[in-house]
Parts: sequence; structure tokens; C-alpha cells
Amino acid sequence: MTFPVVGMVGGGQLARMTHEAGIPLGIRFKLLSDTPQDSAAQVVGDVVVGDYRDLETLRDFARGCDVITFDHEHVPTEHLRALEADGIPVRPGPDALVHAQDKGVMRARLDAIGVPCPRHRLVADPGDVAAFAAEGGGGFPVVLKTVRGGYDGKGVWVVGSAEEAAEPFKAGVPVLAEEKVDFVRELAANVVRSPHGQAVAYPVVESQQVNGVCDTVIAPAPGLDEELALRAEEMALHIAGELGVVGHLAVELFQTRDGRILVNELAMRPHNSGHWSMDGAITSQFANHVRAVLDLPLGDPRPRAKWTVMVNVLGGDYPDMYSAYLHCMARDPQLKIHMYGKDVKPGRKVGHVNTYGDDLDDVLERARHAAGYLRGTITE
Amino acid sequence: MTFPVVGMVGGGQLARMTHEAGIPLGIRFKLLSDTPQDSAAQVVGDVVVGDYRDLETLRDFARGCDVITFDHEHVPTEHLRALEADGIPVRPGPDALVHAQDKGVMRARLDAIGVPCPRHRLVADPGDVAAFAAEGGGGFPVVLKTVRGGYDGKGVWVVGSAEEAAEPFKAGVPVLAEEKVDFVRELAANVVRSPHGQAVAYPVVESQQVNGVCDTVIAPAPGLDEELALRAEEMALHIAGELGVVGHLAVELFQTRDGRILVNELAMRPHNSGHWSMDGAITSQFANHVRAVLDLPLGDPRPRAKWTVMVNVLGGDYPDMYSAYLHCMARDPQLKIHMYGKDVKPGRKVGHVNTYGDDLDDVLERARHAAGYLRGTITE
Repeated sequence: MTFPVVGMVGGGQLARMTHEAGIPLGIRFKLLSDTPQDSAAQVVGDVVVGDYRDLETLRDFARGCDVITFDHEHVPTEHLRALEADGIPVRPGPDALVHAQDKGVMRARLDAIGVPCPRHRLVADPGDVAAFAAEGGGGFPVVLKTVRGGYDGKGVWVVGSAEEAAEPFKAGVPVLAEEKVDFVRELAANVVRSPHGQAVAYPVVESQQVNGVCDTVIAPAPGLDEELALRAEEMALHIAGELGVVGHLAVELFQTRDGRILVNELAMRPHNSGHWSMDGAITSQFANHVRAVLDLPLGDPRPRAKWTVMVNVLGGDYPDMYSAYLHCMARDPQLKIHMYGKDVKPGRKVGHVNTYGDDLDDVLERARHAAGYLRGTITE
Repeated sequence: MTFPVVGMVGGGQLARMTHEAGIPLGIRFKLLSDTPQDSAAQVVGDVVVGDYRDLETLRDFARGCDVITFDHEHVPTEHLRALEADGIPVRPGPDALVHAQDKGVMRARLDAIGVPCPRHRLVADPGDVAAFAAEGGGGFPVVLKTVRGGYDGKGVWVVGSAEEAAEPFKAGVPVLAEEKVDFVRELAANVVRSPHGQAVAYPVVESQQVNGVCDTVIAPAPGLDEELALRAEEMALHIAGELGVVGHLAVELFQTRDGRILVNELAMRPHNSGHWSMDGAITSQFANHVRAVLDLPLGDPRPRAKWTVMVNVLGGDYPDMYSAYLHCMARDPQLKIHMYGKDVKPGRKVGHVNTYGDDLDDVLERARHAAGYLRGTITE
């Protein structure tokens, strides 16, 4: 049977879980991985080890692929244009992906299409930061972000004065200043869009961060006003359409104290805020990402349970989690564990757990207990 | 992280789906496959191509595996004993597996532990068959089975007279005669058992065969008397315990017109009658098989939906199913398609579809439509 080959650039856990979702679809998967030990490289059959920053490596890899997609957003835009010029479909394409690669480009574009964002401006030095702080009337603190390369809290600073603002400029890359939003919580609106424009929206979720890293996701976001939820979904669909996104788009949002929603970040790939969908939705974000990049009809994104909770498993005290993992399985036969095959390092995302059910308190407790036990912060 | 390596002998779809279930568990998978094109070999990273009938190939393969399990029941018993003597855990072990390999051994053992079976006897020639037919008072037809090597209706004959009974003896292997049971339907009781004796039972399902090949499975079996369902589950757990099964055990049953349940066949591996569990149970048969062979605590086997229906996709008129597959996705965004990556040959199992919901008629219609459309027997 001549089913298509999806070329995945990047060997992290997103690639691993996309491969898992592609197996029942009958899709062949080819992986470009930094090392043979990467999370996805352990479980994929057809693995090329190479550097995605090298155009010839990418070109060699792309031969025999029907489409190229990504585990991360770090492939240089000009390489993606070169692949497209070679006739390889790149999804999402470089014109869309640049908005997830460059926060300056993203903010300018969202402003242009009328999507509400935190007040922001590109800044050149600490003096600019002080001027930005004064302008808004809110003063300090101000959030500074390098426009490229940040993730999981890296490349982000919250500064309380112009004197504290020297650090972000040291790398010599453009810096974006943003107001520190007075938010009540963070939400994520996840949508999937196909090349011919079909799009589906997952229920809006609540995303709880600890030290700038996603910790807990609750689907759907508890107590979220229906009108606000609809507005967030429409906003995400609007962004996907305007930017020409193909595949999964995560729109990270602030819900402000005064009832607005502002866009924090965009990610154009399966996203941590969508991991709950593996066990909690009719069609997971990974399955729908594969379907979208192949321009197949999309699957139903609706939830299968009243509540689904995802908690990330971070590396902690146990270099080997196997006995903790065994304990968690014994304690909760309904627990869904997802391990990434990665070496444990403190604070590193090495897996996640999903739980679902009718009672949110119970579902939260079960997921948090399992993740804490695996990390070693809970021992009973 | 030093998670264990499961060595899977056989590269068919059962191995493919077991690998899929092992990915979130963080389990490393090593495959012994006949060819690099086999269903599982397409999607597994660590593949050894070799002949499972060769002991040295098996021994080489087993090095570096923490446990050996199977996609099929064809590995010679003496090879499994040799692996065990080498210190490799083989699960299910040869003492259990022989009951799924040899129908004569299976029948004798089930008789000994008091499990009801169709009337049966080993027969040496057509004269024996005539005597067997006369004895029971039921006369012909009689079912003849080669004790080893049959599956999906192969190695099984229904004969109407002693004259018709010559064929089964031609292969020179022992033949088992069985009464042709007057059954109202076929059921399957699926259980999973771990080495330290934990066991879980899936709901008893109805299995509908067409031309001796499984076509449709309905979970749970509609209208099944609760007492009878419980008896079937207990019978399967009893067999698993008495035979020392480790992993998934499928007990195929006849429900007779007079309200009895009789064992038809045993399979000691994930089984077609359990494919519904991939989308319909909290923990799939594949995930629980992996957990069992590693002696991990088992997952909850209960259903997630009121009704789940599985229909096999057989090869039909389309050598390439891709456009039919696209059509099915568009028609039913809730459909769960599972393709095996196999070349289409008429009548060959190349995939299955699962549907679930509250309305059995609707769930059945959707699954049958999709499977028929993929096969080419439905064109609208």
C-alpha cells in the first residue's frame, strides 16, 4: 500500500508521540534526529542522524518524504524556503513558521490582524526599556524577551528597573519589551488547520506554570465563561487562517483580571498544552497534526471525559524512575503514563501523566500524586 | 533511564500495535521479523531480520532483551525451553504456550481442569471419524482440525461423511475431531495475567466470523446474561491461572442454544477479539500485554464507552486504499482507523476500524460502512 511518508525534523518527545499517533494511521515516518539516543530516535524505524542547521543534510533527508514537519521551531527560515523551492511541501511553511520563530514578527503581525496582545515594543538598550515602562503608565516590572530562541522560560527576564535590564542585551539579539500582564490565569487555545483550510478547535484549557515551565493542564479550563472560551477559540482559528498555519497551532493566552484575553506565545507544532488530548479527546493533537500536514480530513477534537488533567513529569531525585513508575501503576490502574525515554536530569521534562473522570478534584489529585511520586517530591 | 527491553518475535500487526502501546510506557522494543517490510518492522527502531525457527537466530536476538514475547504461536517449544535455559524470561512460557500451539494438548488439559469443551477426540483416519460421529448420537457433520498450525479457518474442515474426511489426514499431522456445536453466537473472554498472578478480565465480547475469519466484534456482547458473562470471565481467569499464562489470553467461546458456553480456541497473545480495546477500554490489550510480560501492575480493562465495535478491514478491490481512507475520515471524524502497512491482497487483514458510542445500531453502521468502503464492497 503506498501510504505517504512524513519527514519529521527533530527527535524530541513531540516527534516520538507524533510517530505513535502515525502508526495506526498507516503513515510511514522518517526522522531527522541529532543523535540516535534522542527520544523519538529510540522508537522510529527510519532514522537519519544529522544536523538540521545544515541545508544539504536537510535536502538529503527530504528526498523520499512526501511532506516535512517539525518537532521544534529552530530550522532556519531560508533552509525551509530552499526545501520548498526543491518541491518538498513544508508544513507549516516558512511564511507561517516565522511567527513562531520570531516574537517581533509575531507581535507585529498580530497587531496588524487585530489580535489583542500585551503592550510591547522592540527595545535597543536599557534606556529604551525605561522609556517603555514609563509610557504605559504601569512602570516596572517589564518583561524582556529575546525575539528568537527562547522556550520554557529561557530567554525571558522580568526586570524591576533599567539597571536590571542589561542582561538580555548581552547576547546581541533583538529584544522585545512587554508589559507584565496582571493575569488571573493562563489559558491555551489549540487548533489544527489543513492546507485546504479545514480547521478544528480543541476546548480551551487552563495551563499552570511553575518557574516558567508548564506544570499542569486542565481540559477544559474550569469555570471559563462560555463567551470567553468561544472568543479564544475564534481568535486561534483567526490566527491560524491569517498566518496560513498548517498543522497544530497552540495559542498561549493570558486571562486578565479585567476579563480580556491577550496572546502570550504561539507554537506551530504539537504542544505541551495539548498532551491531555492523547487520552482525553476523540482525536489527539498528534493524530490531527499528522492528518493536517498530509491534508487528510481532520478528526473530532472534542473531549471524551468531563475533565482531563495532564501533569508534566520532571526529572528529580531518581536517576531511574522505574520503581516509582511501577508504584504509580499499582496505585492507580486508570493512570495514563507517557514516558519519553530521556535521561533524567533535574527539572527536565521526561514524561507526563494524564488522568480523566467526572470529579475534577479527584482527577487533579491523581495526576499530581503520580507526577510528584515519579519526580520524588512525594514518597508515599 | 534504564527501562527494560521487550523482545518481540514476529513482525505482524500484533507486534506493530504492541510497539505502539509500548511507546508511552517508555519500553524499548526489539523485533525479530521475517522481512524488513513486515507490518511491525516498518515502525520499530530496533529490528533484527531472521528466522524464528532457527535457534541460534533466536539466541542472538534474545541477547539484550529483558523478556521475550510473541506476535504468533509458531516458535518451536524446544527453542523456547532453550531460551529459558539460557536465563531469558519467555512470556508466555513454553509450558503455557503449548496449549495454544497444540489443540490436542489444549483439549486434554481443559478436560482435566473441568472446563467445558465441545465433544472431541484425536482421530487417526476416516474410520475413526465415522466412529466419533456415531458415538455422540449427533452423527455428521463433524469438525476436523489439525492439532498444530491452523488459524483464521485454515487447518479446519467441516465434513459431512467419512468419505469427505480424507483431506485433513493428508498432511500427516495429528487430527482432532470435534462435534459441530449448535451455537447461537461466538463470544470471546479476554484476560491478562502477570507472572506474580495479578489478572484482569475485559468485558466478554461477541465475535462474528465470516468464512472462518473474524469480521466484527461488539464490546460488550449485546444482551449477554450477566451470570453467563461472569461465568465466561471466571472460566478465562481459571484457564489463565491453571495453565500459567503470562500476558494476554483470548478464550474463544461458543454460546450454545441450550445456554452453555464451550471453549472453541485459546490464543496466548493480543488477539483480534481485543482490538476494540485500543479505543474502547481504559487500558488496551496491547498495553496490558506489555505490562504483564514485564510483571508491571496491570491497567484497568473496563470500557470507556457504552458500546465499542471493531470491524476488520480485509483486502479487496483497491490495491491502494488511500483515497478510500481519506473518504472514510471525511465521512466520520470520530472513526478510529488502524492500518497495518500491509500490501493489499484479497481477503487479507490489512487493518481494522473502531467506533464507539451510546447507540449500538449507529456504532455498528459506522464501523461496517468504513470497513466496507475501505474494502471496496461499499462505494457510496
